[in-house]
Amino acid sequence: MNMNPYKILEIKQSVFDNNDQRAALLRDELKKSKTFLLNLMASPGSGKTSTIVRTIEALKDEMNIGVMEADIDSDVDAHTISLTGAKVIQLHTGGMCHLDSDMTRQGLSGIGTEGMDCIILENVGNLVCPAEFDTGASKNAMILSVPEGDDKPLKYPLMFSIASVLLINKIDAMDFFNFDLDEVKKRARKLNPDIKIIPISAKTGEGIDEWAEWLRSEVVAWKK
Amino acid sequence: MNMNPYKILEIKQSVFDNNDQRAALLRDELKKSKTFLLNLMASPGSGKTSTIVRTIEALKDEMNIGVMEADIDSDVDAHTISLTGAKVIQLHTGGMCHLDSDMTRQGLSGIGTEGMDCIILENVGNLVCPAEFDTGASKNAMILSVPEGDDKPLKYPLMFSIASVLLINKIDAMDFFNFDLDEVKKRARKLNPDIKIIPISAKTGEGIDEWAEWLRSEVVAWKK
Repeated sequence: MNMNPYKILEIKQSVFDNNDQRAALLRDELKKSKTFLLNLMASPGSGKTSTIVRTIEALKDEMNIGVMEADIDSDVDAHTISLTGAKVIQLHTGGMCHLDSDMTRQGLSGIGTEGMDCIILENVGNLVCPAEFDTGASKNAMILSVPEGDDKPLKYPLMFSIASVLLINKIDAMDFFNFDLDEVKKRARKLNPDIKIIPISAKTGEGIDEWAEWLRSEVVAWKK
Repeated sequence: MNMNPYKILEIKQSVFDNNDQRAALLRDELKKSKTFLLNLMASPGSGKTSTIVRTIEALKDEMNIGVMEADIDSDVDAHTISLTGAKVIQLHTGGMCHLDSDMTRQGLSGIGTEGMDCIILENVGNLVCPAEFDTGASKNAMILSVPEGDDKPLKYPLMFSIASVLLINKIDAMDFFNFDLDEVKKRARKLNPDIKIIPISAKTGEGIDEWAEWLRSEVVAWKK
């Protein structure tokens, strides 16, 4: 296996209180350097890392993809991603439940954006805090997995409101769980009428083509 | 169906910075009033509410159980619990990702502890923030559900360290997911050698007897 070496970066807590301005500045810089930054958010165990693996497989022949794995602790996710051969860095948040734009900037310096078309930030597994902080990403994406239940838009409305795209993962487990796909679509669109919703299975590969197509067109548009 | 009416309480953010002391004080008061407070923590969608419903069914003939449902928004969980006939209150945290002891105290005032043997606090769905704040509970319990994966103790070590009991829920879905029960037990016990681990299924009822027995003996010991 072609395992890519990776480093672990201990992120320092941000001391700035103007995150929105600093996030906008970071977004401008990324636009100029033609690097698309995707902020991927979800609960623990929703399948963020395996979805990223599928995304890399689908797009690696046409663009340079890097991954920043944010976690409180451990480097299991960076290890998994490194097996794809993609550039990856593990970010340790020192107990913080989210990344803001300054912490994201530290991560970007650590991985290096030179020549990268798309960097995926796997945010800390959490449906609350990451939604409250603009990371400076080009777009926000979120995953809701079928076993979590179809009531989640009711309970975590902010997350569903700020995501441009909602991946509904583990769709292959639909028959096993009591999950109403139409209902969750309705609930998400009530909060966010423009949200793009794509059912996927990172396990079977179902829906990954449609997701890769969405990401491809966003990256292309960003570089214009 | 015997639906119990319930109220929704908007919790005020705590202004105190000595949470550990205030939590200890609350715990003393609960000990004196012979009310056991269980702080139940987990990811979104791990099955906290359905586990509480099973717990009420198992123990309602022998003790008075009340439930505080904490959420950013919505009252779907309080509604579900109310159908059991148990006393329940919905706490809205106003965007906060956890409860501290002062917020818990507000909830207890709202539900009323008089004559209650056991109050279960369903904390906000989150494996990070709730672990950092002592609520004043008699004991901490956590749920990890099978679809979330067996690597979670590596990623959220604090949560596994402060829980007295770990319920591994959706055990009926074991065959469907790649989940190594022995491995997760090893990882949890490495962080917390005394942690009690009980595999359950809130769906089928498997393991609920053992869990109810644990809770029963804790409540009895608390009242002594």
